[in-house]
Amino acid sequence: MENSVTVRSPATVSNVVCGFDCLGFALREPFDEVRVTLSSQLGIRISHTDGLGLPSDPLKNVAGAAIAALQSRLTDGVGFDIQIHKGIRPGSGIGSSAASSCGAVVAADRLLGGRFKPAELVEFALAGEELASGSRHADNAAPCVFGGFVLVRSTRPLDIVELAHPPLYATVLHPQIEVKTSDARAVLPREVPLASAVRNWSNLGAFVAALASGDLELMSRAMQDDIVEPARMALIPGFHNARQAGLEAGAIGGGISGSGPSIFMLSADERTASSVADAMSVSYAATGLDFRVYISEVGGSAAAE
Amino acid sequence: MENSVTVRSPATVSNVVCGFDCLGFALREPFDEVRVTLSSQLGIRISHTDGLGLPSDPLKNVAGAAIAALQSRLTDGVGFDIQIHKGIRPGSGIGSSAASSCGAVVAADRLLGGRFKPAELVEFALAGEELASGSRHADNAAPCVFGGFVLVRSTRPLDIVELAHPPLYATVLHPQIEVKTSDARAVLPREVPLASAVRNWSNLGAFVAALASGDLELMSRAMQDDIVEPARMALIPGFHNARQAGLEAGAIGGGISGSGPSIFMLSADERTASSVADAMSVSYAATGLDFRVYISEVGGSAAAE
Repeated sequence: MENSVTVRSPATVSNVVCGFDCLGFALREPFDEVRVTLSSQLGIRISHTDGLGLPSDPLKNVAGAAIAALQSRLTDGVGFDIQIHKGIRPGSGIGSSAASSCGAVVAADRLLGGRFKPAELVEFALAGEELASGSRHADNAAPCVFGGFVLVRSTRPLDIVELAHPPLYATVLHPQIEVKTSDARAVLPREVPLASAVRNWSNLGAFVAALASGDLELMSRAMQDDIVEPARMALIPGFHNARQAGLEAGAIGGGISGSGPSIFMLSADERTASSVADAMSVSYAATGLDFRVYISEVGGSAAAE
Repeated sequence: MENSVTVRSPATVSNVVCGFDCLGFALREPFDEVRVTLSSQLGIRISHTDGLGLPSDPLKNVAGAAIAALQSRLTDGVGFDIQIHKGIRPGSGIGSSAASSCGAVVAADRLLGGRFKPAELVEFALAGEELASGSRHADNAAPCVFGGFVLVRSTRPLDIVELAHPPLYATVLHPQIEVKTSDARAVLPREVPLASAVRNWSNLGAFVAALASGDLELMSRAMQDDIVEPARMALIPGFHNARQAGLEAGAIGGGISGSGPSIFMLSADERTASSVADAMSVSYAATGLDFRVYISEVGGSAAAE
């Protein structure tokens, strides 16, 4: 048995415009590096090598909460040392907490010889998600563990559907502002008109069909959201113009990543994703806010060796 | 140019539990037979050979309305004689009006040498749907023209997505009671909780994924509806027990066909669909209501030769 495993656990984009609270995909980068070491000393110890000041108390750390959930299923007398180097900024809206939680449980499971199914690892990681945001949403953790595009049909019981997809490239613009997940939840309507809901599920059905068939024009038409985006876009300065710039540069579609503030666009190839990054950067510079831009193929996972 | 064409235009099941107002599939039977003859005498003339007493005034007949919509795009000095033999009972909830409308425009287009695209034929047929129910829903007309499983992403503009699917067999039980589409619309909530809407689009996304991958267990789990079915099932005596009987006989899932009163179940093979028919019949006999049962492979279309 190996004594120590390091996992690169990628950023993820959830919601994906028309799949609020159920759809997500994994990037290849940025990623967190999570190193887990089995120890004969019981308990969970957390350290960071990134200077971001995240909590090292395992009860207050998302990776600690996820490992505690895994540990509750063990009868072995083992403890865990977790060392985290975050490549994903907390609060960016690209699955920072899920990456640390999933990275930790994937690494731990590998050290334990692969006892758990991927869906069980997601279940453990949800303890981290609950700690981070107060809700058991799996649309970041599931793609982080499974990779690629994933649909979460249900969280209780957890029902994860892997979706075949054509090659896709994501451009993510991360404005250096804070949007609290709790604020992004608070602006959502509690009720929606049935007609709007029908439009949304028609679009999601079409989006899933487009992933399966590779019809990128259909995918583009399906990337519309009348419900969540109108409520949240006011929280993200420069959102509308940045997306418009991305579309004009050739992106298939895009919108708010997770609960924001990151803005993502999907493109058919890396060259277009790069042009989209340039166009969005020019647009976003006009806000006067700092930002970072990432370009990555869709498809990484914490479970990849 | 042929002078006369007869089309077998099939019944269709819309909504399909989790795809309210956007999803539908075509059966092979029952079907309407629609014979259209080009005439040098301008105007539209309708006759019936089924004794059901449907209107022959082209302004009041769904096939007449559909042909009038098609004719508005012609500059030829031609008229149409339409002879309809209905195999689908009006008001059954399995796309009776769509079958006549689509059959007429498909036959007319063939006589005209195939001038129109299938989506244009659906657009014409929507004039018939609007006459029948007051709403431009395309989730019967689109599968009737295209065949198989179809998702209507949008009606304005019309955006129709053909969905690949594994072999499937439908059992349809048609209680001989009347449920007016207007009543079935009136019981629907105007607003729905966001959480219910999320559950529904998660299920529809999973259903479309299951069609693409052939995962019938996923399809079964996805066939749930918290929104429309609870509102409408009270209009259909014996609904709950009949569906339960169908599930216990091995069906994948099922529910209300269109706005009812027909109840449909999907099965993986014809033998199961037949057992499902037997079980539902035994169950439904307990209501004391008359009913008919149909078994058909999924996949017919009015456009099939």
